[in-house]
Amino acid sequence: MFEAEISASKLQDTVSKIDALVDECKVHLNEDGLSVQAVDPASVGMVDVSLPKEDFAQYEADGELLGLNLVRFGEVVGMGNSGDTVALELNEETRKLRVKIGGLRYTLALIDPDSIHQEPTVPDLDNAEFDVVGEEIQTAVKAAGLVSDHMGLRHDHGSLEGFAEGDTDDVSVDMDTVDGRDIPDDEEASLFSLDYLDAMAKGLPKDSDVTVELGDDYPVKMTAELAEYGEMTYLLAPRIENE
Amino acid sequence: MFEAEISASKLQDTVSKIDALVDECKVHLNEDGLSVQAVDPASVGMVDVSLPKEDFAQYEADGELLGLNLVRFGEVVGMGNSGDTVALELNEETRKLRVKIGGLRYTLALIDPDSIHQEPTVPDLDNAEFDVVGEEIQTAVKAAGLVSDHMGLRHDHGSLEGFAEGDTDDVSVDMDTVDGRDIPDDEEASLFSLDYLDAMAKGLPKDSDVTVELGDDYPVKMTAELAEYGEMTYLLAPRIENE
Amino acid sequence: MFEAEISASKLQDTVSKIDALVDECKVHLNEDGLSVQAVDPASVGMVDVSLPKEDFAQYEADGELLGLNLVRFGEVVGMGNSGDTVALELNEETRKLRVKIGGLRYTLALIDPDSIHQEPTVPDLDNAEFDVVGEEIQTAVKAAGLVSDHMGLRHDHGSLEGFAEGDTDDVSVDMDTVDGRDIPDDEEASLFSLDYLDAMAKGLPKDSDVTVELGDDYPVKMTAELAEYGEMTYLLAPRIENE
Repeated sequence: MFEAEISASKLQDTVSKIDALVDECKVHLNEDGLSVQAVDPASVGMVDVSLPKEDFAQYEADGELLGLNLVRFGEVVGMGNSGDTVALELNEETRKLRVKIGGLRYTLALIDPDSIHQEPTVPDLDNAEFDVVGEEIQTAVKAAGLVSDHMGLRHDHGSLEGFAEGDTDDVSVDMDTVDGRDIPDDEEASLFSLDYLDAMAKGLPKDSDVTVELGDDYPVKMTAELAEYGEMTYLLAPRIENE
Repeated sequence: MFEAEISASKLQDTVSKIDALVDECKVHLNEDGLSVQAVDPASVGMVDVSLPKEDFAQYEADGELLGLNLVRFGEVVGMGNSGDTVALELNEETRKLRVKIGGLRYTLALIDPDSIHQEPTVPDLDNAEFDVVGEEIQTAVKAAGLVSDHMGLRHDHGSLEGFAEGDTDDVSVDMDTVDGRDIPDDEEASLFSLDYLDAMAKGLPKDSDVTVELGDDYPVKMTAELAEYGEMTYLLAPRIENE
Repeated sequence: MFEAEISASKLQDTVSKIDALVDECKVHLNEDGLSVQAVDPASVGMVDVSLPKEDFAQYEADGELLGLNLVRFGEVVGMGNSGDTVALELNEETRKLRVKIGGLRYTLALIDPDSIHQEPTVPDLDNAEFDVVGEEIQTAVKAAGLVSDHMGLRHDHGSLEGFAEGDTDDVSVDMDTVDGRDIPDDEEASLFSLDYLDAMAKGLPKDSDVTVELGDDYPVKMTAELAEYGEMTYLLAPRIENE
């Protein structure tokens, strides 16, 4: 059985992290909480979200797996005001999810999980790590968008920089780092699609820390806290420089 | 002669109730106030608005009948700020309406009233009546729009509910009723076009009471106060269930 | 050499006055400040802006002339928040402008000044002058737009009025004048394209005084203060009444 209650704002926030990348996903309802791993149709970006039992007002699950239409689910949860509680209940027989917010009762048909894109495993990267406030990344992405459709991330002796080169103009943004770990002496840089970085940047928290793991022509990994006890990670494959 | 003065916000609000359904209307300027009855071109929805003399700062009329381009009139009145007063004066010879708001003087050409859709008479229905805060109806309409293009209203032993059935998903919303009258023992329900209900819901007051009169496969009537002394009613014909 | 620092909000505001009319302009960087004169491609409207050294936190120039892509420059400056400072530095060799806002460094390619539309000289008009708060002009322009695509300005014994005639409806707006000078006894009026007046009205300050110089079938000149020490002027050629 699956039954849970959670604040509408926590649930809305969680959905928005995932639907930045995908329209449908598999949701694992384990005993200790909910988790989602999803990769976009082009297999360029991944998202990994876990929301433990502690973030729910009430939570009971036995390892169920749901196929969820995120767009529709987000619309329903969006009917709630910030102070509202959302109650979720799975009907095993009809394979429908009952969503209850105040006097609103919504019966959501689920998707066959097998029809959804294979789930990725987010790898350990062992790269240089930097802690930055999310807004630093959002500003760099916005600035890069003035001149190009891709953006580089570079670290050099502890500094972290976003940069982009246009046909006539260039832009670079120094990001204020709060902390750093495992930083090699040599400069490293990777280039990314701005469409993906932009979607991910919007899903990152604006005012709190994001850990950025960066290598040389290597995927970037961005990890942040979700709700009070959860965690979210975006992983984005690099573009090859001479594309 | 027709001469009147009224606060811009009262007049804007009154116009918005009517232009939810029609672009043009006949305005009756009787000695004791202004009234409008209008039916939409498809004859599915009606609106009945009366704004008595007491809601005007000044009012003088002798039973004139105007044909009004509501869209244009609404734009002109919308030039006023909330604290402004709108002065109206009919020029009988030119058949133009002089609108004055502060230093702004607008001369509005009237429409031949005979060219406007026949006025309806809003019937007495003798049905079950429920008082609900307008926002309850607005929420139900929004929720129904997630799954369908029509919405049902149902009462059952004193409860009032909006509901909609989509291809895969269903939704229902319990509405908090403040009061009720003439409620039969048997459940009654009627189905309505969501386009019309949505337009009407936007015209209803959000924070104050609306009286909903509901029958079985029967028109719904929604009545609310307008300004301080006026009244407004929407009437909507039902859709037949097996359409 | 050209090097300067100025608050982001002052620079954003200055750019918005000019890009109301043109996408590119020549910028004169004289020892005592910056100035721009530009005429729109149809040679109907002119803008003249001067921002003296005193409005900058730091300013050094030797009479340089830049060709500026205003749209792009406005986007870059718009990356700054209101409390930010923008640092500008011209690289004489590459003919690129370095823009620095916090950690953001943008290298903007300049345009060949010779490729930009010839600069106008804003003439002295010797006409009747009225001081009005900018919002009065904005209201008149908005009202005229309800009925026409052009608007007249008329003065008559010290009063100033905007007016427009549509196919069926007319509108006129009395403007509150704060002061007036050199006002002839006879009425004078001129007719203008509303597209231009609308763009210029948006560039005028809403809450402070604008000096309007008006003649008979003659250009209108509108002058206002810019930042703390600067000045801006719009000049608009009249339309001929029987166009």
